[in-house]
Amino acid sequence: MAQSGGRPVRPPQVLKGMRDILPQQMVLRQHVISTFRRVFERYGFEPIETPVLEYLDVLTGKYGEDEKLIYHFTDRGGREVGMRYDLTVPLARFVATHRHELSFPFKRYHIEPVFRADRPQRGRYRQFWQCDADIVGTASMLADAEVIMVWIDALSAIHMPNFVIHINHRKLLQSMAQFAGVPEAQAVTIHRAIDKLGKIGREGVREEMLQNGISPEAADRVLDLVELEGEPEVVLAELRTRLAGNQLAQEGIADLEELFRYLGEMNADPKHYCLDLALARGLDYYTGPVFEAMVSEPNIGSLGGAGRYDHLIGMFLGEDIPATGASLGLERIIDVIQELNLLPQPRTVTDVLVTIFGDEELGASLGFVSQLRAAGINAEVYLGERRDLRRQMQYADRKGIPLAAFLGPEEIAAGTVNLRVMASGEQFTVPVGEAVDTIDRLRVRERDSDGAAGE
Amino acid sequence: MAQSGGRPVRPPQVLKGMRDILPQQMVLRQHVISTFRRVFERYGFEPIETPVLEYLDVLTGKYGEDEKLIYHFTDRGGREVGMRYDLTVPLARFVATHRHELSFPFKRYHIEPVFRADRPQRGRYRQFWQCDADIVGTASMLADAEVIMVWIDALSAIHMPNFVIHINHRKLLQSMAQFAGVPEAQAVTIHRAIDKLGKIGREGVREEMLQNGISPEAADRVLDLVELEGEPEVVLAELRTRLAGNQLAQEGIADLEELFRYLGEMNADPKHYCLDLALARGLDYYTGPVFEAMVSEPNIGSLGGAGRYDHLIGMFLGEDIPATGASLGLERIIDVIQELNLLPQPRTVTDVLVTIFGDEELGASLGFVSQLRAAGINAEVYLGERRDLRRQMQYADRKGIPLAAFLGPEEIAAGTVNLRVMASGEQFTVPVGEAVDTIDRLRVRERDSDGAAGE
Repeated sequence: MAQSGGRPVRPPQVLKGMRDILPQQMVLRQHVISTFRRVFERYGFEPIETPVLEYLDVLTGKYGEDEKLIYHFTDRGGREVGMRYDLTVPLARFVATHRHELSFPFKRYHIEPVFRADRPQRGRYRQFWQCDADIVGTASMLADAEVIMVWIDALSAIHMPNFVIHINHRKLLQSMAQFAGVPEAQAVTIHRAIDKLGKIGREGVREEMLQNGISPEAADRVLDLVELEGEPEVVLAELRTRLAGNQLAQEGIADLEELFRYLGEMNADPKHYCLDLALARGLDYYTGPVFEAMVSEPNIGSLGGAGRYDHLIGMFLGEDIPATGASLGLERIIDVIQELNLLPQPRTVTDVLVTIFGDEELGASLGFVSQLRAAGINAEVYLGERRDLRRQMQYADRKGIPLAAFLGPEEIAAGTVNLRVMASGEQFTVPVGEAVDTIDRLRVRERDSDGAAGE
Repeated sequence: MAQSGGRPVRPPQVLKGMRDILPQQMVLRQHVISTFRRVFERYGFEPIETPVLEYLDVLTGKYGEDEKLIYHFTDRGGREVGMRYDLTVPLARFVATHRHELSFPFKRYHIEPVFRADRPQRGRYRQFWQCDADIVGTASMLADAEVIMVWIDALSAIHMPNFVIHINHRKLLQSMAQFAGVPEAQAVTIHRAIDKLGKIGREGVREEMLQNGISPEAADRVLDLVELEGEPEVVLAELRTRLAGNQLAQEGIADLEELFRYLGEMNADPKHYCLDLALARGLDYYTGPVFEAMVSEPNIGSLGGAGRYDHLIGMFLGEDIPATGASLGLERIIDVIQELNLLPQPRTVTDVLVTIFGDEELGASLGFVSQLRAAGINAEVYLGERRDLRRQMQYADRKGIPLAAFLGPEEIAAGTVNLRVMASGEQFTVPVGEAVDTIDRLRVRERDSDGAAGE
């Protein structure tokens, strides 16, 4: 048997960049996850799960230079394995593996942690959760519109204020280089620069392009394009003219026209999406529309990215299956909710602490707590070995339990229970048979008086 | 950009012993997990999360010879890391790390996957989920009683039939060797043998003990003890007499007497628990009562194990903090639910497929699906590129979507929608404004007619 014998192995700690989630934050996380789940299912997205570990060659060749951040090792069977880096590549592998068991278009959601051996920074961890919703097996822009709609509904459901989904198209981005007359190898330079337009402004972007060998004329041509603003339909019509003759651009414009039409027909709130010709998402595998959910007031930045990736599944199957999807980052969203106090954050799941008066009265308290639980009330008895009342009240106080119940000899003799509201000290003595109703009423009142918005 | 160019990297597969969870099973898993979560919270257990990866020396020295099954590697920073093997050792590390941020007794639940490089067998995987509920910071048997109660409620909530929680005590097991007069080094031999009593019977167990060098007299003495049956109170009183003078045994008996008293006072259903003196759980770290949840009809075996481990946290802290807890295996439970058809298993999350008549009518269908979703109905439109009605009906059929909605030119002109029950072919034409009510009524009816037990 393990004996401690006073030998601490080491000061216990979590790995650098990893962390524990304590109960209070965990309750909030579960609330957000179950809200997202409900919204995803309202759109007919179905849940799946994939293993944390995959064959390493499933993961490699998909993420560009970020591939070096994949956790990988050789297992005892000599297999090269990697921990999943995102949920999109595992989805592509999943679809290739189970192709004949699925109905297409296949809509799935997947909410699980991913792993990146990244440099830890504030708000960035080596294990973090993604909340993905993807549609596989259709090239229709209706699918991209649904992905944007489900984002709008998911973020609205957690009361996220002022978010805007920025929309662009990979083909428009690619055509920029052609339009500016620079070689394709320099396209990435242009994308990287214009993506910073919101941060460093026109002059900053122009400067960066020039430093990277783009001619002033080309830089200005690109900037004049990406700075076009206004109703998507109007801007797209203008682009059609300016980029006439550019095949790639025309394809992208046609896609986006269709996409914006569908969003209108689905009654998407226009304040939550916009055309942003400067948006350039980094991942290698995007092929069509790309999206990013941004909050600018307060200046939170990106909550998640998304886009169409029509060739990724083909890398596993040798035959393309078109797909599009969206990925929200749970950690960032939780940070924002806490910073802006968007949702109620109860300190504990427990509604009532049933105190124990003494050994004689223990049975009455145990019977009462069972009765509350059977009625669906979250109730505890104090489980410590020393049960003086002061200790029990301290426990309720420290945990933030809103109500306490007392069953002393008098109450037991009278068939009643004494209920105390911890915050105010108010007390109510009610017959045991009415306790459930009284507690229900009090816990609703206490929750509402917390001041935070209810769901 | 990634191009497939017809090169499949390899036939896509998951690692040996790992697996994907497809939507239909995933819906069931989520239902079970959220049921457990609700029951755990009803007892005031709070959720936590710990990282998948831990410093390797957090995990080593805790699991005996099974330690070799820990997935481990050296990370890029040169740290020896391991993937969590269970949720109990991470809890002990968590409590040591966050000792001053927690209120004790600390009740937590944790539902997440764990990883073991075990030999894959039917029903045994290298990644599997555990559902743990533990109480830390009290040696009171009240805590052990709560752990048993929360198991009974959790298994009852998923309609698990005929389960029995077998209860024994580590100290009684240890005292067996003393009582039989065999050296302590042979105690494990005895435990291993008597644990098979249910499987191989008295003669089998006796044979195994003799083969391992236990004398026939000692073997009989042990067997006469562990075969004692009856009301726990009666058996414990008998043990008190037979093991008089054995200090360890008397301590174990006192604990169990207290434990069974509390279970009675909490109104635990006696058909769901029993004293089983042959139960010997394997893990090194147990110190007090041990439990195992078993289903014998049909012969399913163990659904999970549990017990008290008063020294484990001390291995991290150099100072003991008593703890007890229970761990249910999700995979085994899901297998049983599917085998015995204990819960409804809807094929899809979607309630309604809103079909698209043609390009002209697309807008009406998109508007209608948005309206259903806003009313909380899980609704889809068909997202494929080719939208002939046959394809759309096939999609609903293959996915098992119970209802379909049609908005053709006539319906649109009349402000109605046509609803079809897929299973029966029944049709209803109702005003669009009444569609939500009608669908609500129909989906309840279709679910009930599935024949499986409701929640």
